[in-house]
Amino acid sequence: MEEELLMIPGPVPVLPRIREAMSKPMIFHRGEEFGQLYAEIVEGLKEIFQTRNDLFVLSGSGTCAMEAAVENLAAEGTRVVCVANGKFGERFSEIAAGGGGGKRKREANFDWGSPIELEVVKAALEESPSSAPKVVTLVHNETSTGILNPAREVGRLARKHDAVFVLDCVTSIGGDEVLVDEFGVDIAIVGSQKCLGAPPGLSAVSVSEKAWDLIQENKEEKEKEKKNKKRPYYADLVAYKKSFEKRQTPYTPALPLFFALHEALEVVKEEGLTRRVERHRRLAETVRNAVRGLGLELFPRLNEVSSYSNTVTAVKIPEGKGLVDGDEQIRGGMLERGVRVAGGQGRLKGKIFRIATMGNITEDEVSRTIEALEQVVEEVEKW
Amino acid sequence: MEEELLMIPGPVPVLPRIREAMSKPMIFHRGEEFGQLYAEIVEGLKEIFQTRNDLFVLSGSGTCAMEAAVENLAAEGTRVVCVANGKFGERFSEIAAGGGGGKRKREANFDWGSPIELEVVKAALEESPSSAPKVVTLVHNETSTGILNPAREVGRLARKHDAVFVLDCVTSIGGDEVLVDEFGVDIAIVGSQKCLGAPPGLSAVSVSEKAWDLIQENKEEKEKEKKNKKRPYYADLVAYKKSFEKRQTPYTPALPLFFALHEALEVVKEEGLTRRVERHRRLAETVRNAVRGLGLELFPRLNEVSSYSNTVTAVKIPEGKGLVDGDEQIRGGMLERGVRVAGGQGRLKGKIFRIATMGNITEDEVSRTIEALEQVVEEVEKW
Repeated sequence: MEEELLMIPGPVPVLPRIREAMSKPMIFHRGEEFGQLYAEIVEGLKEIFQTRNDLFVLSGSGTCAMEAAVENLAAEGTRVVCVANGKFGERFSEIAAGGGGGKRKREANFDWGSPIELEVVKAALEESPSSAPKVVTLVHNETSTGILNPAREVGRLARKHDAVFVLDCVTSIGGDEVLVDEFGVDIAIVGSQKCLGAPPGLSAVSVSEKAWDLIQENKEEKEKEKKNKKRPYYADLVAYKKSFEKRQTPYTPALPLFFALHEALEVVKEEGLTRRVERHRRLAETVRNAVRGLGLELFPRLNEVSSYSNTVTAVKIPEGKGLVDGDEQIRGGMLERGVRVAGGQGRLKGKIFRIATMGNITEDEVSRTIEALEQVVEEVEKW
Repeated sequence: MEEELLMIPGPVPVLPRIREAMSKPMIFHRGEEFGQLYAEIVEGLKEIFQTRNDLFVLSGSGTCAMEAAVENLAAEGTRVVCVANGKFGERFSEIAAGGGGGKRKREANFDWGSPIELEVVKAALEESPSSAPKVVTLVHNETSTGILNPAREVGRLARKHDAVFVLDCVTSIGGDEVLVDEFGVDIAIVGSQKCLGAPPGLSAVSVSEKAWDLIQENKEEKEKEKKNKKRPYYADLVAYKKSFEKRQTPYTPALPLFFALHEALEVVKEEGLTRRVERHRRLAETVRNAVRGLGLELFPRLNEVSSYSNTVTAVKIPEGKGLVDGDEQIRGGMLERGVRVAGGQGRLKGKIFRIATMGNITEDEVSRTIEALEQVVEEVEKW
């Protein structure tokens, strides 16, 4: 049976050499061999993040890292401005609220698929200056809607208000231009199973001096008041920092995934980051052109500070034209042709489908995907 | 170079067939193939846990699962009795305290290496009945000291006080007798990289009806009071339960580790749980006998309700006899012979060393370990 081609926004297909790296024997996780492996991964990631900040690898998915960022930074009552225009932006709001009714968060919410309007973000930051927001969260590449959000501009607003800027780059780092230091990102997050082309299970976070100051403040405040404030244990970034002095992780690392990530970073290095970003852009452009050529419509609405994602393309499921259940007909039809694309999430279920072009995806794989889409659309139009 | 023999209490050596399972291509993590894989893992683990309770696999280490247990169960102010006689027992106290000064916890602490005294646990449970403890935590197999704690007896005390019983079986399940339902364990935890013989990175938790009731109470209380209480996001067990209805995980699972765990459970099934436990007991017995035969002393002190661990043997580092730095001489000497054993942790550093016999370790590997130890001891005595 031919292998299903995964064109979903993670897990992405993983090259055999990266998968095979996982079949190595286990090593002592507190020894030199691990220390060197970890240090090389961190150095490799810092280059891709384009940052000089501290950086750690967590044995948990991107969501684990998102929670780590918010929970390390925000004490009870800390105002967090969650800028959101999709499922993952809203995930930050959910984490910030702690499920508990919004004591910590303040929203700058936009419809799913709409662009971020900087005026609204500015207003959220300026509102009630008596308790100034200390943290601003944004998702750079919102995979739920296929939009690339204005990281640099929101970063500038955060800096102006002296807030720590948390940027979820889970699906942009390694596939699009992310200049963590230049954008003023205090905590940047990536997931292993997206543009880096590694298997799922790891995430990485970079932490700036400014972020450390707030983390320390949160930590001290909590200890002083002997309060049972939310601070994480497994994802305690202070513990990660301390352990990194010995090139270790505070808790047992998921070794095979570290082996794989190390190899995946070798692949990135061999291609070169600039060429890799160009390839991602070119492939996404190819998909967008093909989609438009078929008379289909891209989902996101853009403004002057946003653009289409270069790692995932969200397409409206058309109505009429003999479509009974467009989602099933399009995605099911493509799957029959061996290509797995993603559906809409949450409130977008049945309304859009999404084609990812992340990681080590090739021109050929994109051609195969487009061909499948063309056949499906043609078939539907015949009915 | 000969592969280093890992005789540490996790990560344990992983059989080639289990490691090779990780080199399979990625699959859609919301599809049928993953659903079946996950369901089979859960069924396999339930048999090993000997439980009918719900069970989930978390993409995080045992510590992630320990935090999940406490944070899902205990609201602000919930009294948690942390029964501890070693590093991992105390880890529960740290998590329960949330680093914030002990508002939630009440200790039943014993010296590291001492046995649990049931009278002390009883007293901690009975103390100040105005705020009855709702949760009792215990580490079954305390790897930091090589002692097996009285799970059944502490479980009985917890039940008598209507408290939810959380048992860390991270290093006992799959290697020693753990009867989750018969012991009255409401939340049991295992790690992948210990007696199950899989790579590190996953943990599993079983959850009883009684535990669900308290989790629900904690959840509702928090929502009602709109309070920012500690409840986890990444490790939200309610989310795990909901996702499991569709045989999914709430966040992207670490796929290769699931492939490996599935294969590791096949290995357990082929050996049979009873034989596996017998093998663990026999190998630990062999190590203990050899250690005693060399005139070395086992570290733990036992009482009538405790016994030596059957998965890790803790040995006192002798003084005198030409030893300058016994830890370095013993562990370093063994490492020169290709065998990696573990040192003492925390306050036991330099005072003990530990030989694990976990997972798919063979008689031959144990013989090789004992031989190395004999040679090292002989060498030291010559000095």
